[in-house]
Amino acid sequence: MIKNNRLLQALDRKPLDRPPVWLMRQAGRYLPEYRKLRSQAGNFMALCKNPELACEVTLQPLERFELDAAIIFSDILTIPDAMGLGLFFVENEGPQFERPIRTEKDVDALPVLESGDLEYVMHAITRTTAALNGRVPLIGFSGSPWTVATYMVEGHSTRHFATIKKMLYAAPHVLHRLLDKLTQSTIAYLKGQVVAGANALMIFDTWGSVLSHPAYQQFSLEYMHKIVIAVRLAHPDIPITLFTKGGGLWLEDMAATGCQALGLDWSVDLSQARMRVGSTVALQGNLDPLILLAGPEATAQETKRLLAEFGHFPGHIFNLGHGLVPETPIESVLALIETIQSSGEQN
Amino acid sequence: MIKNNRLLQALDRKPLDRPPVWLMRQAGRYLPEYRKLRSQAGNFMALCKNPELACEVTLQPLERFELDAAIIFSDILTIPDAMGLGLFFVENEGPQFERPIRTEKDVDALPVLESGDLEYVMHAITRTTAALNGRVPLIGFSGSPWTVATYMVEGHSTRHFATIKKMLYAAPHVLHRLLDKLTQSTIAYLKGQVVAGANALMIFDTWGSVLSHPAYQQFSLEYMHKIVIAVRLAHPDIPITLFTKGGGLWLEDMAATGCQALGLDWSVDLSQARMRVGSTVALQGNLDPLILLAGPEATAQETKRLLAEFGHFPGHIFNLGHGLVPETPIESVLALIETIQSSGEQN
Repeated sequence: MIKNNRLLQALDRKPLDRPPVWLMRQAGRYLPEYRKLRSQAGNFMALCKNPELACEVTLQPLERFELDAAIIFSDILTIPDAMGLGLFFVENEGPQFERPIRTEKDVDALPVLESGDLEYVMHAITRTTAALNGRVPLIGFSGSPWTVATYMVEGHSTRHFATIKKMLYAAPHVLHRLLDKLTQSTIAYLKGQVVAGANALMIFDTWGSVLSHPAYQQFSLEYMHKIVIAVRLAHPDIPITLFTKGGGLWLEDMAATGCQALGLDWSVDLSQARMRVGSTVALQGNLDPLILLAGPEATAQETKRLLAEFGHFPGHIFNLGHGLVPETPIESVLALIETIQSSGEQN
Repeated sequence: MIKNNRLLQALDRKPLDRPPVWLMRQAGRYLPEYRKLRSQAGNFMALCKNPELACEVTLQPLERFELDAAIIFSDILTIPDAMGLGLFFVENEGPQFERPIRTEKDVDALPVLESGDLEYVMHAITRTTAALNGRVPLIGFSGSPWTVATYMVEGHSTRHFATIKKMLYAAPHVLHRLLDKLTQSTIAYLKGQVVAGANALMIFDTWGSVLSHPAYQQFSLEYMHKIVIAVRLAHPDIPITLFTKGGGLWLEDMAATGCQALGLDWSVDLSQARMRVGSTVALQGNLDPLILLAGPEATAQETKRLLAEFGHFPGHIFNLGHGLVPETPIESVLALIETIQSSGEQN
């Protein structure tokens, strides 16, 4: 049913002439057509919440570049927003919540969501799958419970994560209850995305790396593990990618969750990562998105280096180590995609 | 000559009944006596530049706690300040420079420093060594060339390091010239600190982890390596500790520089780190400083866990994985130190 199923084959660790490629934040502010739609919508969340516009934004980068996957345009904070925390965005300061979670009472009052509570995401997925008409797979996603909890507890951007760490160390049972509610909600949310049409899933653990080694296992990985098990039980064919940014030390533990792929940031050496996790999972990554600021030539050169580093080991999905930044020149993205494409023709 | 030489013995990987303990930012804003002196001095750099006050601040935590080392009160940005970039601090925004380095011409115009250009640091060290009178060793330090360069090129705090990464990828020769001047200056600076009386040295690479795996080797580690070689050639008995925050993936490479110890942040599992680097270097770390916000009991418990994780393998220096934060309760610091002290009595 899916014409270009390169991504799904790579996630299944099948040999390919070249890796599939998609880019984190491939739909976003570096595209003038995105900026236009966003200003029409008024703000970022209005864009996410309008299935028609979210679908249009999701498809924008595919009109420009030969990408092997689409990822639904949404945000990792849709869940706490739907829980009633009052999400808003301040220019250059990132997301904030009107009513952050600070006490056990706050956690008790939180609802556990069902997929119907985030109907606008399901509608956007259904609409996008229809529009794609099998051209490439559509990736659904969520944040990890720990990462989402950092925003809910801190309430705004933070450098030290002092509020949630104080909760973690002084009242771990409260944090575990919060993470448990987020985990149940995330399971329902991701299962809903699959029912709506998503062909693969990714869990973004942007802030797992601020935890100590044992705290990562208990407060982040354990909950991602529960999500992988529950979602795969309901949908055994849907591959799940885990991405803990800065989590290069913990790849073996992440692979042991039963996920199908690991996202890698640029601090990880690809061949070392492959040796460590063997052939149990596919690996996705790991170009430094900032290299694209240096222009098409530097981008193409580094892309070639990474391709050589992976070799032709099955199970590589080419991507960045983190999202495209708004200042990214479009010509650099083009150079990246063309370098990957032509690597297939040479084989 | 040094009465409590526990730190130097641990750096030399000698067996001890308990590890030595000191804390990054042990002299700092969490101490009321520090806040008093700082408000007298007017600002942070005025405090650093006054040898009498810098000495007093250095000794303050030793009056309260049974610490096994003092670290000279200073800043990693003394070098670019002395190079004439116009360092200033904005409350809650971190350090900034009036004249950041952006072009090849800017780099050409930079002087290479001699230790005499930072005489106030040497005076502070001499004065502090005299005041300590051999009670505990005094640690001198610098930033890594890469980390210092990030501040010089960005000019202010940054999340993405876009300006210096653009330089790294588009004009690597310019960045290498800058790093080379910083390396030469840092070698002179650290050698000067030893001559002035420092008994051990530490190089802080706070931002090495924002680099890709190969870029870390070329743009951060290589220059730290040069510093280790040059300083040890002049002063073969002075142990040097390297600390790349978030550099847990690269411990083997760091140990191969010939340094005597590695600083570890809390993301690293101590026993795994020990297995990876063997007995070639001492290991320093790695309590999450945020646990101290949860109070003395939680702090003591986690300190005990870390002590057990290290076991009695020689070459452990107890420390935090990063500096104490200003909100740290003094009772938690006391609980930490007492837990370490009493672990020795039990052996």
